[in-house]
Amino acid sequence: MLSYKKNAGLSYTLGITITIELLKTMPKNVKKIYFHSSFRKEETYNQIIKLCEKNRILYEENDKPFQSLSKKENDYVIGEFYKFQTPFQNDTNHLVLVNPSNSGNLGTIIRSMSGFGMNHLAIITPSVDLFDPKVIRASMGSFFHINWKLYTSFEAYKQDYSRKIYSFMLDGHINLSNITIEEPFSLIFGNEATGLDSSFLQYDSIRIQHNTTIDSLNLPIAVSIALYEFTKNKFKEYAGE
Amino acid sequence: MLSYKKNAGLSYTLGITITIELLKTMPKNVKKIYFHSSFRKEETYNQIIKLCEKNRILYEENDKPFQSLSKKENDYVIGEFYKFQTPFQNDTNHLVLVNPSNSGNLGTIIRSMSGFGMNHLAIITPSVDLFDPKVIRASMGSFFHINWKLYTSFEAYKQDYSRKIYSFMLDGHINLSNITIEEPFSLIFGNEATGLDSSFLQYDSIRIQHNTTIDSLNLPIAVSIALYEFTKNKFKEYAGE
Repeated sequence: MLSYKKNAGLSYTLGITITIELLKTMPKNVKKIYFHSSFRKEETYNQIIKLCEKNRILYEENDKPFQSLSKKENDYVIGEFYKFQTPFQNDTNHLVLVNPSNSGNLGTIIRSMSGFGMNHLAIITPSVDLFDPKVIRASMGSFFHINWKLYTSFEAYKQDYSRKIYSFMLDGHINLSNITIEEPFSLIFGNEATGLDSSFLQYDSIRIQHNTTIDSLNLPIAVSIALYEFTKNKFKEYAGE
Repeated sequence: MLSYKKNAGLSYTLGITITIELLKTMPKNVKKIYFHSSFRKEETYNQIIKLCEKNRILYEENDKPFQSLSKKENDYVIGEFYKFQTPFQNDTNHLVLVNPSNSGNLGTIIRSMSGFGMNHLAIITPSVDLFDPKVIRASMGSFFHINWKLYTSFEAYKQDYSRKIYSFMLDGHINLSNITIEEPFSLIFGNEATGLDSSFLQYDSIRIQHNTTIDSLNLPIAVSIALYEFTKNKFKEYAGE
């Protein structure tokens, strides 16, 4: 029976769109494609078969993987793939998440990253498992467009890269709408429940000002507002990629 | 057995923080408070009992409502309350959601609204049920700080209010970072899957520019970025409420 295991070498894309994204971006990592017997969209089916045959990828109709892996009724395709590593560069901007704990949030953040052209994600462990199918699903396929690297501490991350550091904190010193941007930069965000500890006030600490009627913004929303503000000048005259 | 029904007059807060928010903001609407037998936080327990006794609200220890209503293991308190209506004003800014379909998204949007001081929400039906406990949970208690009104069509909404209308669309004519703001305004967002139809291009149509690597931003994220941009001047010199 197929099931996802954090310490095993395989992960899974659940759903049509995201599996097509997997086949297009990393065909060499795909082990097998499973179709559900109730899958009826001929055009999409043919597109997936074509991608499989072009890349010599096995496929079969088999409902069992859906019973063990999928919680949604409308998943008709599953992609089984080998986990991979990605390059990680110094001369570009990074998003750094310290101990992210929710897989749906992480996937949603990756989707926003891809949208705003922030392609490098450093994660400080312990954290949610990046290859959890729930992360990949919530990213809507953006997972395959992102470079990432894991670090066991923020200090270890900082030693590897020289750059401007902006830490996002409820009591940050600078209002996000008043920032001056120096590149390359790293945007640092803390865990959903605890945020960043006060040691991060030594950097350019930023707050997204809001009413005290809420304790904080939802993490993917705070990250996305920051990504929007830090990249908006690049998109001012932009008319689509 | 307690269960939530869309067409019944009662709804439920699941969890400690959100039930305290209910007791503080709408004590007259509370029917009963249920404690789980494994609830052990004495200070919080005493705070809730105090709020109940002050407002003559019934409370009891009873695990059954948790079995039927709660899907989370760490919900120790449930508030049962009568659904209510809220006033809705013309001389203030509105957020308008056309056919929102996901309860978690709606709750997350309400949390951001409260944070950015946007307190009026119009919903064009059909839509997800506003009183669904999942909406209230995702709002983290902000549900009780928001004024809302349902309309069966956008035309019906528009007849009631004269104001500037900004429609958010993937092919909107104006880049969000280049807007000029006229108040009072309404920000209009479409359904998660379909967005707004092309008839909304007749208004000041706005796009949140992003790469074409993603089809769209997640709805709560798009709404929150818009709320941030449209309210940032009010928060420029803001040092907390």
